[in-house]
Amino acid sequence: MAQAHTGAVFNKPGFDLVGNYTYAFLGDGCLMEGISSEACSLAGHLQLGNLIAVWDDNHITIDGDTNQAFTEDVVKRYESYGWQVLTVGDGENDLEGIEAALKAAQEVKDKPTLIKLTTIIGYGSKLQGTHSVHGSPLKADDIKQLKTKFGFNPEESFAVPQQVYDLCHQASARGAAAEEEWNQLFAKYSEQYKAEAADLVRRQTGDLPEGWEKSLPVYTPADAAVASRKLSEIVLQKIYEAIPELIGGSADLTGSNLTRWKGAIDFQPPATGLGDYSGRYIRYGVREHGMGAIMNGLAAYGTLLPYGGTFLNFVSYAAGAVRLSALSQVRTIWVATHDSIGLGEDGPTHQPIETLAHFRALPNFMVWRPADGNETSAAYYVALTSKHTSSLLALSRQNLPQLEGSTIDKAAKGGYVLHEVEGADITLVSTGSEVCIAIDAVKELAEKHNLKTRVVSIPCFEVFDAQSREYRLSVLPDGIPSLSIEVMSTMGWERYTHEQFGLNRFGASGAYKDVYKKFEFTPEGIAKRAVATVDFWKDVPNIRSPINRAFQQLI
Amino acid sequence: MAQAHTGAVFNKPGFDLVGNYTYAFLGDGCLMEGISSEACSLAGHLQLGNLIAVWDDNHITIDGDTNQAFTEDVVKRYESYGWQVLTVGDGENDLEGIEAALKAAQEVKDKPTLIKLTTIIGYGSKLQGTHSVHGSPLKADDIKQLKTKFGFNPEESFAVPQQVYDLCHQASARGAAAEEEWNQLFAKYSEQYKAEAADLVRRQTGDLPEGWEKSLPVYTPADAAVASRKLSEIVLQKIYEAIPELIGGSADLTGSNLTRWKGAIDFQPPATGLGDYSGRYIRYGVREHGMGAIMNGLAAYGTLLPYGGTFLNFVSYAAGAVRLSALSQVRTIWVATHDSIGLGEDGPTHQPIETLAHFRALPNFMVWRPADGNETSAAYYVALTSKHTSSLLALSRQNLPQLEGSTIDKAAKGGYVLHEVEGADITLVSTGSEVCIAIDAVKELAEKHNLKTRVVSIPCFEVFDAQSREYRLSVLPDGIPSLSIEVMSTMGWERYTHEQFGLNRFGASGAYKDVYKKFEFTPEGIAKRAVATVDFWKDVPNIRSPINRAFQQLI
Repeated sequence: MAQAHTGAVFNKPGFDLVGNYTYAFLGDGCLMEGISSEACSLAGHLQLGNLIAVWDDNHITIDGDTNQAFTEDVVKRYESYGWQVLTVGDGENDLEGIEAALKAAQEVKDKPTLIKLTTIIGYGSKLQGTHSVHGSPLKADDIKQLKTKFGFNPEESFAVPQQVYDLCHQASARGAAAEEEWNQLFAKYSEQYKAEAADLVRRQTGDLPEGWEKSLPVYTPADAAVASRKLSEIVLQKIYEAIPELIGGSADLTGSNLTRWKGAIDFQPPATGLGDYSGRYIRYGVREHGMGAIMNGLAAYGTLLPYGGTFLNFVSYAAGAVRLSALSQVRTIWVATHDSIGLGEDGPTHQPIETLAHFRALPNFMVWRPADGNETSAAYYVALTSKHTSSLLALSRQNLPQLEGSTIDKAAKGGYVLHEVEGADITLVSTGSEVCIAIDAVKELAEKHNLKTRVVSIPCFEVFDAQSREYRLSVLPDGIPSLSIEVMSTMGWERYTHEQFGLNRFGASGAYKDVYKKFEFTPEGIAKRAVATVDFWKDVPNIRSPINRAFQQLI
Repeated sequence: MAQAHTGAVFNKPGFDLVGNYTYAFLGDGCLMEGISSEACSLAGHLQLGNLIAVWDDNHITIDGDTNQAFTEDVVKRYESYGWQVLTVGDGENDLEGIEAALKAAQEVKDKPTLIKLTTIIGYGSKLQGTHSVHGSPLKADDIKQLKTKFGFNPEESFAVPQQVYDLCHQASARGAAAEEEWNQLFAKYSEQYKAEAADLVRRQTGDLPEGWEKSLPVYTPADAAVASRKLSEIVLQKIYEAIPELIGGSADLTGSNLTRWKGAIDFQPPATGLGDYSGRYIRYGVREHGMGAIMNGLAAYGTLLPYGGTFLNFVSYAAGAVRLSALSQVRTIWVATHDSIGLGEDGPTHQPIETLAHFRALPNFMVWRPADGNETSAAYYVALTSKHTSSLLALSRQNLPQLEGSTIDKAAKGGYVLHEVEGADITLVSTGSEVCIAIDAVKELAEKHNLKTRVVSIPCFEVFDAQSREYRLSVLPDGIPSLSIEVMSTMGWERYTHEQFGLNRFGASGAYKDVYKKFEFTPEGIAKRAVATVDFWKDVPNIRSPINRAFQQLI
């Protein structure tokens, strides 16, 4: 997909600049995992002719023969996806057959190809054809007989014959020549297509175009209340022109995730009449795990900055790909809407409880839960400019007011004081859609309970934890008891506050306001817990802030 | 699978006691999700003739026409899985065709059946055939014309014609007769097969056979050090006879997860010669998400108690199914081995960091990380006897000594004092494979730093949180600073301890001892942080235990 899109954008008549094949090597296990079905069904639909997968068909998995659990007709399955399927029966010896299959794969331009390469695992070993050779090294006597069998000196270890060196050097020379040829082509291209060439070079550095951030919307409290999923749509609408490498999509929830800017062209095979390969909007279908893996691939290719949408709760289906994005240090962005029990009648199956704790615990991954427009812009700013870190934006379905005191700069620190007061009795700490309720609780606490209340917003734990100790202590100082408010698992909030108000049970189906009321996420419900907090902590002298610890080892 | 197994175990000549069909209704989205590929490929392999799936082939998903993302040949794909595929072209009107297809599906006994039922979404509405009818109610004028079209009175709301009532009552009568017939059959069966009948009735209560817990192994410190994955295998080997509803498997990691007791019969179609349907060991293949969903189904059926194995890190692939087990309140058990950076050379792709935080934050789900044999027995005891809660056992690859002070009863409380001392300077709190290192740190701290150290083990947060405040405060009392030790994300540990020693980054590839040493999970590394903890907290009078809070809302 990355090649098809980058080629469609940058190739010009006489300049086949981006035309590489992408090779994937698959085992039986890969074919059993659902993610391969999601990705390969989509690859067939997208007619990705430059994608060539080689299946090591050795009939063995860790548990033994594939006849125990994997007897489907793989050839037929891949044909059903619209792939070309080729077979090579003797994968150890039929080198001409392998070469012919690869050439035949390259020639078909409107279908990906699967080459079924039948092999014998541990070929030549005494244990060949068994699962015993999967995870353990061969024994010394087995290695000896193997070397003898294949014409090597059995007494030599780590010896590479000159013949092999020579062949590899030939490959190096071919590669160097191909690179030189490409460089010359690109030099000519740069003369004729100066802007495009500069853009391609810039993209590969990971830097965004100069001045792009001027497109980010800024809000004042006078602006209307807007759902943060809608605030995200406004950001995308404003930045898509400034950042041409931005390529997005949704796992079949476009109208709910609001991930598609007006006038976007779909990434589709031209033959479908639904778009073309230069299109920057991807219709992933209901395939969250596949989407996550594809985003990782798009980002790794080096010329694209992918984002993808689904409901926050369904990002969990893609947990494997999310983890790999963090470990691979690629830049992808999850637009995760409907981020709480505030999503309404869909109920507990759709309402995340454990999800933020899960992804906040993942290293090198930023979870943002913005409270208003400025915080949403800040989340996008940090996500888009963090070259080696993936991000998730948890966004509301319900409207959120523009807050007094929020700015892009402050929110970009991950946590900040939204509302300060002299001689505070308590600090309320919150994220996303609960911040405005906490603000409303300030008044309630002042009028009914004569308490002075500070409010802190922590839209991103990962970024806040990276600030200096001094700054963090200024946000969450000693001497004041604190209460966190977030309508999901309290797991992790003990890091920042003395008391936690959350939801450590599954949610409920109902209109947003009814569900929030049921669980007391109202100014009154917060005030009740704030009063209990102040009361409980009043006999502790010199209350220590939870972040005032001996050591912190978080990032 | 549940029907095939339960039938194979309980049916007798002349007594077709358990022979139900299982019907599944699928949309296009279900077919796109990878989990359907995993489960349906396995269903084909297992030749589940009583499984009948009806695909609502309406060409529409939320984003619009399926031609945007889903153009695979579903019929061919299901045939490739070894299914019978039937088609009904006019799903709205061809009632005879639907009935004939269902009968044809029932007749084929060695293949599951997919019925492709082509339909028009929102049939009869002005919006029929569009995605607009997916998520929103029809407008009043549309409902009126629809009712008129189909012969209803357009002015009546919520009116059910007598004809429909009559038809439904006929169905009730048929159902009652069928139930009566089955009850008579079962009464006869109970006379002839007393033990089997009693067993079937007992299983459906969810109670385990009386005295089963006597099979649980008990250890003393004199017993050998054993990996907790091996301790789990010993439990399974001891209890499988006592608990006949126990049915297990692994996602192709049997030899690593140690999930198969000696002499187990595989659950396989008899025709394969690899086992039979009475077998209690399931070869899931490399299909974690499918395995999780299948375990949920097996548990929901009412006669089985399923467990399934994979590496802890790969349980994340099944996050959707794990969540649904908790929400559905079914009893399933994940045997999650290789539970930390202690797994060795496989490295960061296999080493969980965020995984325990993720599943600990999930409501109604128990995460156990036992430190020795008695704790492993306790984990199994609580998991097996919790009728409405799923569990995960995080188990080590490396050997763990049998600890002084651990008992099944104490560990079954989720957290307890393993090592007490008068006038303690610090409490070390740990789980699993780090507990024994914490114990070793006690000596180091006494000899080199003159500090008195308590040690607490918390094998299960969820269960510990359910204990009385008084008990929890006796385990984690005021007045003593505390340090947690666990080789993964510290997220959540702030709930119990003042300071945390964990791993908030990805791991490293290497031998267990080298990797633990690199990250300082050694008696010396713990002692260093314990000294820093004591030093940092010494100027705080009357240190409050982190669990001494105004309110707790965790379970």
